[in-house]
Amino acid sequence: MKISELGEDKIIALISEKFKTGGSTGLLGIGDDGAVIPVSEKKSQVITTDALIEDVHFIKNKISPYDLGFKSLAVNLSDIAAMGAKAQHVFLTLALPPKTDTEWLEEFFNGFQALLSASNVTLLGGDTVRTPDRMMISVTAIGEIENNKIKYRSHAKAGDVICVTRAIGDSAAGLECILKNCAPDADTQKLIERHYRPQPQLGEGEFLASSTAVTAMMDLSDGLNSDIKKLMAASKVGAEIHLEKLPLSIELQTKAKKYGWNAVEMAAIGGEDYCLLACVEADAFSLLQEQYRLALKHPLYPIGKIAEAHNGLVFKTNNTAVKLTRKSFEHF
Amino acid sequence: MKISELGEDKIIALISEKFKTGGSTGLLGIGDDGAVIPVSEKKSQVITTDALIEDVHFIKNKISPYDLGFKSLAVNLSDIAAMGAKAQHVFLTLALPPKTDTEWLEEFFNGFQALLSASNVTLLGGDTVRTPDRMMISVTAIGEIENNKIKYRSHAKAGDVICVTRAIGDSAAGLECILKNCAPDADTQKLIERHYRPQPQLGEGEFLASSTAVTAMMDLSDGLNSDIKKLMAASKVGAEIHLEKLPLSIELQTKAKKYGWNAVEMAAIGGEDYCLLACVEADAFSLLQEQYRLALKHPLYPIGKIAEAHNGLVFKTNNTAVKLTRKSFEHF
Repeated sequence: MKISELGEDKIIALISEKFKTGGSTGLLGIGDDGAVIPVSEKKSQVITTDALIEDVHFIKNKISPYDLGFKSLAVNLSDIAAMGAKAQHVFLTLALPPKTDTEWLEEFFNGFQALLSASNVTLLGGDTVRTPDRMMISVTAIGEIENNKIKYRSHAKAGDVICVTRAIGDSAAGLECILKNCAPDADTQKLIERHYRPQPQLGEGEFLASSTAVTAMMDLSDGLNSDIKKLMAASKVGAEIHLEKLPLSIELQTKAKKYGWNAVEMAAIGGEDYCLLACVEADAFSLLQEQYRLALKHPLYPIGKIAEAHNGLVFKTNNTAVKLTRKSFEHF
Repeated sequence: MKISELGEDKIIALISEKFKTGGSTGLLGIGDDGAVIPVSEKKSQVITTDALIEDVHFIKNKISPYDLGFKSLAVNLSDIAAMGAKAQHVFLTLALPPKTDTEWLEEFFNGFQALLSASNVTLLGGDTVRTPDRMMISVTAIGEIENNKIKYRSHAKAGDVICVTRAIGDSAAGLECILKNCAPDADTQKLIERHYRPQPQLGEGEFLASSTAVTAMMDLSDGLNSDIKKLMAASKVGAEIHLEKLPLSIELQTKAKKYGWNAVEMAAIGGEDYCLLACVEADAFSLLQEQYRLALKHPLYPIGKIAEAHNGLVFKTNNTAVKLTRKSFEHF
């Protein structure tokens, strides 16, 4: 059998089976956004790694080297944010074709460095190797967190409010603008920027981690529809998403009207938002939402509720169940 | 300019310049075998990452998936050994073409797992992504060490004895056997095995790290001739290597005689030995060598002396300076 028939989930299941880790050590193995390694009685490290392959995750002549450097780091820091940790160090492995321009490489480093500085994170090492043609970028990021604050995907409970930390769907709309060569007006540029320079929500992650009312957390990378299913599986729960509550940016709404896109489905299914999805105990939600707005200067958006497992995943519009028609986003 | 004209050393210099880390935090940045992160007053983590690219670092139909899994991990654990640390955790990133056989993947995992178990190391996570054609394997390894035991490349002093922990040149000879399709007798098989299944010298690294007489340490990956120059640059010293003292295996000597190879030059220049090179204070060497043999059950081989920087690198045979003729090994 070929691995293409197996699919990403079954490959991960195979890896989990082959490399089972002991549960007694406090170590969390394969399956969450990051791995957790206890470093003292009070603190743990969160470690995560993500790779970007040319022609799979990016098209070299469609993304500037600066943006690619920025994004390579952003997707990894987003996983650190998803566990609630403070990002500290990263390692960068680059496989580059010999024909790569040094100017291209310098600009890649500039984009990577810009987000490093903005996030107060240090590059500590890595590896640079030759590859005959397609470029490959692999980043490992390390964060630190107090043991009692770590947020997993697996602790959501029926009744919790599901919320997101930013308008979603912009990255998918930005990709659509790139693929369809939309006129480069201000809205198009903003959407494309959100696709190429996702802002990892480290401050939001640390804030939410400090609340005991937050039961589970993850980042949205494959799209709400795909990602919430992973949280549901890990927590053994169902979920109800109210589509009319999905936060949509002005730019996405404007472009969707102009081009006849279904903005809500873009938000529900499109990938690479790199904002956080958090589950919050219902009776603590209002207070947390208020504190969040004061601390982060932007809203926390409730979009649905965690349900019992047997309900599965239900999308509703004004309390009527609906089916999504757009195809899901898969990285593998 | 293309990066192929720049070369690996200048790329690393460019990265070091762009991403300078502060010296005040105790963190050691780019340039050694691994990065060092202090985790408490007494202990530090050593972290290292290394990538293998199809058609650059391996030819898929020339190496079994089991051996490739084994070797991918071995080259990383060797870097942990080089700093003297105890290996603990690894992360594995795989970029695989969709046409990869699941049986191939399982065998790859079996080889990886075999060395994990033998080294008492845990796989904690990673990333699995699609690539259109060439496979890419990236491993990040984490070890732990007491702060006062860490060995760097930068502390060798003139007069120190240079030693290696194993016979060298076997991996280069194994590669030669593969490329030349040597008759698969027992010697050929042993040399090929040393090329495909290098044994990371974790026990040797920990033992040498516990001695204050060991001033500097690194692993041999690009070959003695290339690697010692990195240690010389980091320590600002010169070195004198006595070629007649290089430890050569019986298998290498037998094959070299049969095929007319220059075994000594293979040992001095061939890459991928993945044993350790250590510098030891001269007056402490005899005692350390004896203790080493008792603890590790094999010899520690002295091969030369650290000299003042202005002497550069000198190879000698029976005290007469000689020049090597074979071309150096370069990964990039």
